[in-house]
Amino acid sequence: MSNPLAGKDLLSTQTLSREAIELIIAQASTFEAQCQEKRKLDVLEGYILATLFYEPSTRTRLSFETAMHRLGGDVISVAEATKSSSAKKGETIADATRVIAGYADVIVQRHPRPYSAEEAAEGATVPVINAGDGSHEHPTQALLDLYTIAKERGQIDSLRIALVGDLRYGRTVHSLAYALANFDVQLTLVSPPALKMSAQIVDEVRSDIPVIESDDLASALERCDVAYVTRIQKERFDDPADYEALKASYQIDRSLVKRTNPEATLMHPLPRVNEIAPEVDQLPNAAYFRQATNGVWARMAILALVLGAKVEG
Amino acid sequence: MSNPLAGKDLLSTQTLSREAIELIIAQASTFEAQCQEKRKLDVLEGYILATLFYEPSTRTRLSFETAMHRLGGDVISVAEATKSSSAKKGETIADATRVIAGYADVIVQRHPRPYSAEEAAEGATVPVINAGDGSHEHPTQALLDLYTIAKERGQIDSLRIALVGDLRYGRTVHSLAYALANFDVQLTLVSPPALKMSAQIVDEVRSDIPVIESDDLASALERCDVAYVTRIQKERFDDPADYEALKASYQIDRSLVKRTNPEATLMHPLPRVNEIAPEVDQLPNAAYFRQATNGVWARMAILALVLGAKVEG
Amino acid sequence: MSNPLAGKDLLSTQTLSREAIELIIAQASTFEAQCQEKRKLDVLEGYILATLFYEPSTRTRLSFETAMHRLGGDVISVAEATKSSSAKKGETIADATRVIAGYADVIVQRHPRPYSAEEAAEGATVPVINAGDGSHEHPTQALLDLYTIAKERGQIDSLRIALVGDLRYGRTVHSLAYALANFDVQLTLVSPPALKMSAQIVDEVRSDIPVIESDDLASALERCDVAYVTRIQKERFDDPADYEALKASYQIDRSLVKRTNPEATLMHPLPRVNEIAPEVDQLPNAAYFRQATNGVWARMAILALVLGAKVEG
Repeated sequence: MSNPLAGKDLLSTQTLSREAIELIIAQASTFEAQCQEKRKLDVLEGYILATLFYEPSTRTRLSFETAMHRLGGDVISVAEATKSSSAKKGETIADATRVIAGYADVIVQRHPRPYSAEEAAEGATVPVINAGDGSHEHPTQALLDLYTIAKERGQIDSLRIALVGDLRYGRTVHSLAYALANFDVQLTLVSPPALKMSAQIVDEVRSDIPVIESDDLASALERCDVAYVTRIQKERFDDPADYEALKASYQIDRSLVKRTNPEATLMHPLPRVNEIAPEVDQLPNAAYFRQATNGVWARMAILALVLGAKVEG
Repeated sequence: MSNPLAGKDLLSTQTLSREAIELIIAQASTFEAQCQEKRKLDVLEGYILATLFYEPSTRTRLSFETAMHRLGGDVISVAEATKSSSAKKGETIADATRVIAGYADVIVQRHPRPYSAEEAAEGATVPVINAGDGSHEHPTQALLDLYTIAKERGQIDSLRIALVGDLRYGRTVHSLAYALANFDVQLTLVSPPALKMSAQIVDEVRSDIPVIESDDLASALERCDVAYVTRIQKERFDDPADYEALKASYQIDRSLVKRTNPEATLMHPLPRVNEIAPEVDQLPNAAYFRQATNGVWARMAILALVLGAKVEG
Repeated sequence: MSNPLAGKDLLSTQTLSREAIELIIAQASTFEAQCQEKRKLDVLEGYILATLFYEPSTRTRLSFETAMHRLGGDVISVAEATKSSSAKKGETIADATRVIAGYADVIVQRHPRPYSAEEAAEGATVPVINAGDGSHEHPTQALLDLYTIAKERGQIDSLRIALVGDLRYGRTVHSLAYALANFDVQLTLVSPPALKMSAQIVDEVRSDIPVIESDDLASALERCDVAYVTRIQKERFDDPADYEALKASYQIDRSLVKRTNPEATLMHPLPRVNEIAPEVDQLPNAAYFRQATNGVWARMAILALVLGAKVEG
């Protein structure tokens, strides 16, 4: 099978084809199965991953690092790149990644500035993977989300998917919306008016798939197969009272699930604070912790594919 | 030999049996011998350790990571977990470890809050090892301490052991006292009145072994086989003058050792500041740097045993 | 071939012989060639490197860690050692490295205090490599610089080398000047008067090779084969106006290169801010990014040699 990702950066889901997404999902599934048999593969033996985080992160960085270890590779890591002497001295992102490309075979970068991944890719002579650039995109999260949907529901096509919460600043939902536009799905966007997804993204996605916008969580839950919930942050509101007023209407508890749609697959990029009650965790359709674990298999696939590794099916 | 630690958390020494402690000591000794022959074993090949430190640490984290490498495993690490976006966003400890249990086969956590290790274990589906929870416990330090005593003195039973310094807030002495209660030892607790071990712990330990409390370091040294010294922190005293007044009476130098007990094995969990003078380091019974190195062998044993690894004797 | 570095610390270039430097260069070249064939060697399999950084760093730490991985070894790392509990509690550097020497086979330390590497070496029972001690020295940078000069120019002897920028506080130029004094080179030191290299270093170097001091960048460029440029920091000047006044005269752009010496090899320890314009990067003699990558090969050689590893030629 040809690999359209080999040697390429992964900066956004906007430019990913359905073929590329399906390749990643298939490869993630293969790796997941292989790792049940054997804890460590030798697919990327001798390769080095650099994780370069200008914003602190736990799950994204760790799951990439575990992915690399399970593929037999090694890792070098800057967990707090903003504090590095280079960044303080005013080095550009492009210079930093150009140097690190001399040390590593692939670079995973998180940075608070939108499009900083593009700057990184410009400097680097090795593939750069965007692990979050401000409120812009987080493509590998979207890919593990798609892998999770495919696993939990058997397929992606024909599903009705609701994205819930902060759709304006949440980078994961941006990348996910773009990625879902490649499939035959129906999207419902559920958010407070102040946190609606930008018209630009909605328009782009709507040119491919049907998109409904709503601020009514209960009825959106009733009409969906998958609810993808994100956190609403108090600090996004000018008036804290506005936050308090709507907080409750974006909280999912067992009673709401039971009342609206006990079958909907519940997802969340995590960390979760109040938006899904812990009592929901025990429900069989509460998929968010399985979703986190899927990050390892999806990122194994991404690393192996951008590095053009020979992999068995 | 049956392994009572396999698949279990290691949160406290309070619930460790003598059998389990002896198994760890025996395994540590085996690993130490094997590593003289071969720098790296394959006991945990393909396993991943996550070190999750909500409090900065050097020696505990590094010795666990070295232990994992020497066993052939891989490591993912959060050296400053309090700064991670998840902790800042208000994620619970249980959620954090539940996610990380999807990335790693065993989790070592340090956190400033007592009993936070229990919270972590509740969330995780893999073994959690407590690497210090506030002023509560530090069980793996106690285990390397016991391994050190066994190596330095040939046995633990029948020894007279003095714990010296801050016995109120020092978590290492809490775990060590609980662990020693499994052996036929006599314990002397030497501390300023304000820093006495809590009556609750003393009573519990005293139900198993004889415990003497004292604030006279010199005579305690005279009557012990092992002196375990910990740091007294200025900030524990309401009035700094109180600290200055007693500081000198808790400092061990060569002359004190010579005068009281030149044979006593001297231990310290380190870092040491003023409580043991550098001139003492050269004495053959100054065991504290050997003790630090023993952390590697003891932690190799702990990791291998909680992971239920097949090990040769 | 005998290896004068085996088991030794690497604290300074002042005491390095020409023989030792040439051994490192030859070994770096061998490793670079071997890594074109095979991504990972087994030269240091089972060995553990500890990187201990009391000052944040990206390139030095990461290139050492990549070097260790490519040699088949493992790494433990403290990226922010000043924040570690031990340093905060007042542990000495010697105690810290003595403990870490129980966990690792070689220690790479960066610390803001001059001669702190000597303190570290005093405590450690394993080789200590100085990765920068304040404004004093940075010997491994000098060694990768020499390797770069040798690669770019075919030899070191007979070259005219200009060191440009902050020669007072820049530790890389101190180590480089000492190292170059072993070769048959002519040195030009180009800096603003306030940032001249200390007379003590200049005198020492001048006892071996010719040294010219200047503050005229253009004519120094005209008369050199290699220009080694370092950053001038605003904060070094009492009066910011002094900095602004001379800033422009220490900036290298394409027009200056073309006008003075289009053939000179351009080097820089990086990070670069304004002192070399990005338009210069495309010139074939702009060697600074290749120089950064050479850090991996030079540090592989240093690690293997101080550890006395058996290496093939």
